[in-house]
Amino acid sequence: MKGALLFIGDELITGRILNTNAEFAGKILSAFGLEPEEIVTIPDIEDKIINTLRRLIEEYDFVITSGGLGPTEDDLTTQAVAKALDLPLKEDKALLAAILASSEYKDTFAMASKMALMPEGAQALSEDSKVVGFALTYRDKRLFFLPGVPSQFQDLLKNKVIPQLCLWKTGGRTLECGEGKVFKSFIFFDLNETDLNRFIQEIPSKEGLKIGYYPLLPEVRLVIFGREEEVKNITEQIKVRFKLNLVGEEEESLPQGIGKLLRERRETLATAESCTGGYLASLITSIAGSSDYFDRGFVTYTAKSKSEILGVKEETLTQQGVYSYETAIEMALGAKRLSHSTYALATTGVAGPTGGTPQIPVGTVFIALATPQKVYAFKFYFEGNRNTIQRVASYTALDILRRYLLYGEGFFSYRFAQGFKERPL
Amino acid sequence: MKGALLFIGDELITGRILNTNAEFAGKILSAFGLEPEEIVTIPDIEDKIINTLRRLIEEYDFVITSGGLGPTEDDLTTQAVAKALDLPLKEDKALLAAILASSEYKDTFAMASKMALMPEGAQALSEDSKVVGFALTYRDKRLFFLPGVPSQFQDLLKNKVIPQLCLWKTGGRTLECGEGKVFKSFIFFDLNETDLNRFIQEIPSKEGLKIGYYPLLPEVRLVIFGREEEVKNITEQIKVRFKLNLVGEEEESLPQGIGKLLRERRETLATAESCTGGYLASLITSIAGSSDYFDRGFVTYTAKSKSEILGVKEETLTQQGVYSYETAIEMALGAKRLSHSTYALATTGVAGPTGGTPQIPVGTVFIALATPQKVYAFKFYFEGNRNTIQRVASYTALDILRRYLLYGEGFFSYRFAQGFKERPL
Repeated sequence: MKGALLFIGDELITGRILNTNAEFAGKILSAFGLEPEEIVTIPDIEDKIINTLRRLIEEYDFVITSGGLGPTEDDLTTQAVAKALDLPLKEDKALLAAILASSEYKDTFAMASKMALMPEGAQALSEDSKVVGFALTYRDKRLFFLPGVPSQFQDLLKNKVIPQLCLWKTGGRTLECGEGKVFKSFIFFDLNETDLNRFIQEIPSKEGLKIGYYPLLPEVRLVIFGREEEVKNITEQIKVRFKLNLVGEEEESLPQGIGKLLRERRETLATAESCTGGYLASLITSIAGSSDYFDRGFVTYTAKSKSEILGVKEETLTQQGVYSYETAIEMALGAKRLSHSTYALATTGVAGPTGGTPQIPVGTVFIALATPQKVYAFKFYFEGNRNTIQRVASYTALDILRRYLLYGEGFFSYRFAQGFKERPL
Repeated sequence: MKGALLFIGDELITGRILNTNAEFAGKILSAFGLEPEEIVTIPDIEDKIINTLRRLIEEYDFVITSGGLGPTEDDLTTQAVAKALDLPLKEDKALLAAILASSEYKDTFAMASKMALMPEGAQALSEDSKVVGFALTYRDKRLFFLPGVPSQFQDLLKNKVIPQLCLWKTGGRTLECGEGKVFKSFIFFDLNETDLNRFIQEIPSKEGLKIGYYPLLPEVRLVIFGREEEVKNITEQIKVRFKLNLVGEEEESLPQGIGKLLRERRETLATAESCTGGYLASLITSIAGSSDYFDRGFVTYTAKSKSEILGVKEETLTQQGVYSYETAIEMALGAKRLSHSTYALATTGVAGPTGGTPQIPVGTVFIALATPQKVYAFKFYFEGNRNTIQRVASYTALDILRRYLLYGEGFFSYRFAQGFKERPL
């Protein structure tokens, strides 16, 4: 079964916006073995939409479009579909009522009417008609017309289009696919994909279940689709087997997850950063409401600032080195003391591209976590450019705290870790 | 003159990488009135490349491809071009010599030979043959085959493809376009595009000059193309007229520019962040070598941390408020004192989505700059979501310092500023 994606919009042609829908669709469709064989982007020109649509329908088994379903003059997709397939347009009464009920369109009947049009035979994708978008079967081809708004496109693609394509792909056999099936997604960190693969392959009777995963660097997203009971069953197994790596369910990222955990426990966090240079703090404060659990952070970029601000001992810096377990430990202890926070995370290392040595190459990062009882320090080696190293080191620091909060100190194993030290406060 | 872009690579279809080349190409081609009418992405499948290429050549006047020119088995573009256009492949001796001279391929003659192949009649795009990529005229259509590596794709597009397309578009009239023409690009901040537009329209005798600009949020990039002398002339005019907004020439971003200025002056900077939460520090430290001028930074996210760490007075916080000129001023002074830095930047405000009031709505940000003589504070109102507000506020803080370093205190005018205060230290 071969498919194509069609993105419609001047703003995508002129690069005014980055096409994140294409990236999302590529990932999730590929995860289900439905990867497109062609992705086309065209401007809001009716003839272009008509011709491209006709060609793609001719060449492929399914086509998913994004964009041009809105109420303004440059939204031409629905009209173009009707012309391309020679179908009359009909007003969908439920859709019109839903659009008029929303405050945004209540005074603009003409706009609402336009958005409520669908080609004859089309079916609205959203049950409550709150989001535009429709599906159509045409000469045994499956066509899906989605809005370009990323949250709407991605929600409909995941929850409506993929289930329908799965159902269709398997000829409607309910064992394989169909109504009553559900979607489940997880976000993992530091997950070994080989382990995950082996585990999934060994699961007995996973017929009808679809499992895919794709990178969301440095996190990994796993998506499962199937009958509710089976999904529930495998979800439990995956949660047990990979519980250390499970950051969040659905769309919950690591910074969100840390926020939830700390808020629930009424605990607080402080940061002391060298090589991550503020990136760790900015990850934490990218979450709305983070002031509930994040009180303060320190970016101590030079050796002098580490001793002056955080109280790292001169002899630690000169004898152990700026990049060492002990410096990371003293940074974390300093941040904890200065902030009265429950926990403190510290990073020190070489983000590069220069500054590496044979002993401490670029990518070496020491991360420390101070808790009320103990302080833990890890040595990591991360690959990548400066930005990647800063990013992965910051996520890893957050993950160390997550594992500690959920499972305690016995579960600190990381793929890129090279060593570990701990001591009581 | 109508054109199309063709991106070739499995990794783009499966969403493993985000297609930043498409965004760049869309922006820069549009800036020169050469916006593509279709952008197609296909996997590394020979038949697909052949058929798509034939169709695009049929429908468009020019086609630019990206990807599949490398030495590995999945790099199929050159072979597919030869088949699609029924042209024999020939080895380009200069290209082969250049490839073999680079250390990467010296032991892999077969790989080098593959990369040195070009269809008969094609011309290498890079003079020194250090980068693969070729141009071909076929049935009066202009075809360009570029590598997918973003730095190489973008460099060849800008410096080779666009000049050749301009030359061709104007029928080779040297007044309009052609050899000896040069490219110049600038990055601006807080630029009013209406002013820029008016200015450009009023320039006399700009025949043959092409001027385009596109957002690089929150910066704006301006590109100029034309005969060296004319470009030089208009470049001087733009530099005079918009000097306050000129962040850097070519690809120099604001964080890079600040770094260069501070390093040249052997001066240093510290930060004290509330609403930007570490984003400002991470912008500064995203630049390699920033430890030369950035010593330390403070993220004081709560009121208490502002007084405990930075010495903001209790009465300032209670009487003026956490979001006020005075709090920003005392934060900057605190960071400067604690860091012994030449300058300190501070931010405090409401990034949202909650926490706004009628007096201080979401988007209100106070930014202070402490210098050796004085301290300046600004009130801004930025629109956008939490992430945008944090980003724009951080860039604005850096830009305030840039203007101060280059032009002194007389040039602090910003579109989104709502007020200003200053006082001696």
